Amino acid sequence: MPTTTATATVAVVSARGAQRWDAGHPWIYRSDLIERPADAPGIVRVRDPRGRPLGQALWSPASEISLRLLTREVDAVIDAGWWHDRLGTALARRAPLAAQASAYRLVHGEGDGLPSLVVDRYDRWLVVQLMSAGLEQARGPIVEALRALTGCEGILARHDAAVRTREGLPRETALLFGDVPQEIEVAEHGVRYLAAPWTGQKTGAFLDQRENRALVGRVARGRALDCFSYHGSFALHLARGADDVLALDVSAHALERAHANAARNGYANLRTREANAFEFLREEERAGTRYDTIVLDPPAFAKTRGALPGALRGYKDVNLRAMRLLAPGGLLFTASCSYHLTKPLFLEMLEAAAADSGRRMALRELRGQPLDHPELLTVPETGYIKGALLEAMD
Amino acid sequence: MPTTTATATVAVVSARGAQRWDAGHPWIYRSDLIERPADAPGIVRVRDPRGRPLGQALWSPASEISLRLLTREVDAVIDAGWWHDRLGTALARRAPLAAQASAYRLVHGEGDGLPSLVVDRYDRWLVVQLMSAGLEQARGPIVEALRALTGCEGILARHDAAVRTREGLPRETALLFGDVPQEIEVAEHGVRYLAAPWTGQKTGAFLDQRENRALVGRVARGRALDCFSYHGSFALHLARGADDVLALDVSAHALERAHANAARNGYANLRTREANAFEFLREEERAGTRYDTIVLDPPAFAKTRGALPGALRGYKDVNLRAMRLLAPGGLLFTASCSYHLTKPLFLEMLEAAAADSGRRMALRELRGQPLDHPELLTVPETGYIKGALLEAMD
Repeated sequence: MPTTTATATVAVVSARGAQRWDAGHPWIYRSDLIERPADAPGIVRVRDPRGRPLGQALWSPASEISLRLLTREVDAVIDAGWWHDRLGTALARRAPLAAQASAYRLVHGEGDGLPSLVVDRYDRWLVVQLMSAGLEQARGPIVEALRALTGCEGILARHDAAVRTREGLPRETALLFGDVPQEIEVAEHGVRYLAAPWTGQKTGAFLDQRENRALVGRVARGRALDCFSYHGSFALHLARGADDVLALDVSAHALERAHANAARNGYANLRTREANAFEFLREEERAGTRYDTIVLDPPAFAKTRGALPGALRGYKDVNLRAMRLLAPGGLLFTASCSYHLTKPLFLEMLEAAAADSGRRMALRELRGQPLDHPELLTVPETGYIKGALLEAMD
Repeated sequence: MPTTTATATVAVVSARGAQRWDAGHPWIYRSDLIERPADAPGIVRVRDPRGRPLGQALWSPASEISLRLLTREVDAVIDAGWWHDRLGTALARRAPLAAQASAYRLVHGEGDGLPSLVVDRYDRWLVVQLMSAGLEQARGPIVEALRALTGCEGILARHDAAVRTREGLPRETALLFGDVPQEIEVAEHGVRYLAAPWTGQKTGAFLDQRENRALVGRVARGRALDCFSYHGSFALHLARGADDVLALDVSAHALERAHANAARNGYANLRTREANAFEFLREEERAGTRYDTIVLDPPAFAKTRGALPGALRGYKDVNLRAMRLLAPGGLLFTASCSYHLTKPLFLEMLEAAAADSGRRMALRELRGQPLDHPELLTVPETGYIKGALLEAMD
């Protein structure tokens, strides 16, 4: 049971908690907290039960994740300059991306050693998410450093995510600096689309699939199908190489945007259709239709671990049906963004789908997260995107 | 117990065997053979226990793998034209590779629907491996079709592999047509090296890592290390982007060839050193040396399933030591060609190595087999190469 000590800025963690840090994971759960700092969230020094200093961490009094390691340097002064340096390192890693796209992630939380912080760039504007109580205390220097490092025209906080509630923080979408438009045109590997920073999914677009969309653009050909198209993000890249593209979604509103995005690029070969992908694929199988390129990038079917068995059936079903629709030599790009569907389970699911499909499916490429969404081997929570490019061999 | 029937050209397989074919795997083991064809190897028709025709297969009387599915078309005439067509399909898939390299695999056995057949192209010459007794009976039409399809100047059979003994076939290296030089210069993504078709590893070079070498060439920089260099195949690509490259191998003879290959490319920044990689990495850790780019492409540590636990320790040890030697931002390309080390085990091993290394390692890219080594989801034996590009985040 954690107890409050006189030293407000010190936390003591169990040997198990200390060992977690040693193994490269930055989180200490409440159950591994032996002595709590005073209740105010912020940055605290951390010690093990023997008094050995372990480093400094973000402290979230209300959260299950009590501490998030910032640095092992016990004496580092975590001031405006410190935030500027660490943010600068993260931003410098992204420099090669600027030539290919005007929207990408600048900070991927734990992956960049900046726990619970997400910063996405959309052209001249930034969207941030401060997702822990400890980090909120550093909002000032973070906003200042981002302004100085990027020269951006506005910073929007998309603080509407549920995780904020678990941290005891209000949920809101608020401007932190300057102004941010409702819609921002993004350039991405030769394609243009509109992001919606105030209201769109995540921070306004699915930046995490950017390099997979570029891959699809490079290999697309013939008759193409995008099954969960949303605003047409994969479909637009398909349209670059395919003769014609059919973009499916259950939302007519999403498809209107897909259509507008196609017009923005001057693509006349992109049609949309309001349909449930599962039903559509079954119908096409009965009709004997064949596609040369298919994209399956469904929403997360497994939002919780408990939902995994049902989700696996869903993934397998949609994948095996897509495999059956491929023309000989046809390509399927298939992905999952369910964190609970691990890489081994994703592969197993594809193997089972291939066996049931009756097709000989080759694994052409395994895909993961792009440079701007660093996935740490020791922090599984930093990784969730899995993809595969498959080819029907006959 | 299999029994010989009067119908020499028919095999009857168990329901389990038939189900294996239905699930996309082309092999029938001896234990699933209910009625054996006459003893002569060749092509046979196959039925299930109820007499349902299943297709046609290569028949190997002496092998544990009795039947290898060629086609489900019961009435197809498998003559010279059939071989020409199927080989032509496999070769056509490789057309995009010719612009990038002069050596690549033309036929990857089961992956190309041509079980137990391997054909590698080295510039104007071919090296083939016919690795089943059934396939040997089709040697004539296969050689004829390859000559007609490629216009090659010579075809060498590298029939020295142990698997030939299990098929009751002689082991030998023999010319099947024309002439094949002792050494052939290969062009590969801007690098040149000598392959040794008569005596080198596999069919004369490690073609399966070609695209991973190209990746390494694209990302290499600073001070670079190639730990199991053999003839310098990764080291040559490192030399394109790095300031200086150190190529390690336990064989002085291999390093002489690496050196000659470097000279062939005019690379003055490649040094070689005869050393055991495990010992060398430990020494460098003690000395505090840092590298910007490291390649680990060791020989298969797990040649059998029984050798796996020891192999895992070896892989983990060499990987964690390499991680420790990386400069901040440094890159590690690490691979395994052990079939028994599955993709999930490979990832688990890297996670454990990262945890013990004390470094924050990001998974930049997962790598598999290239286009010319198709890995079928339903035939695990077609896949064995796993690779990962890792980055030290600090």
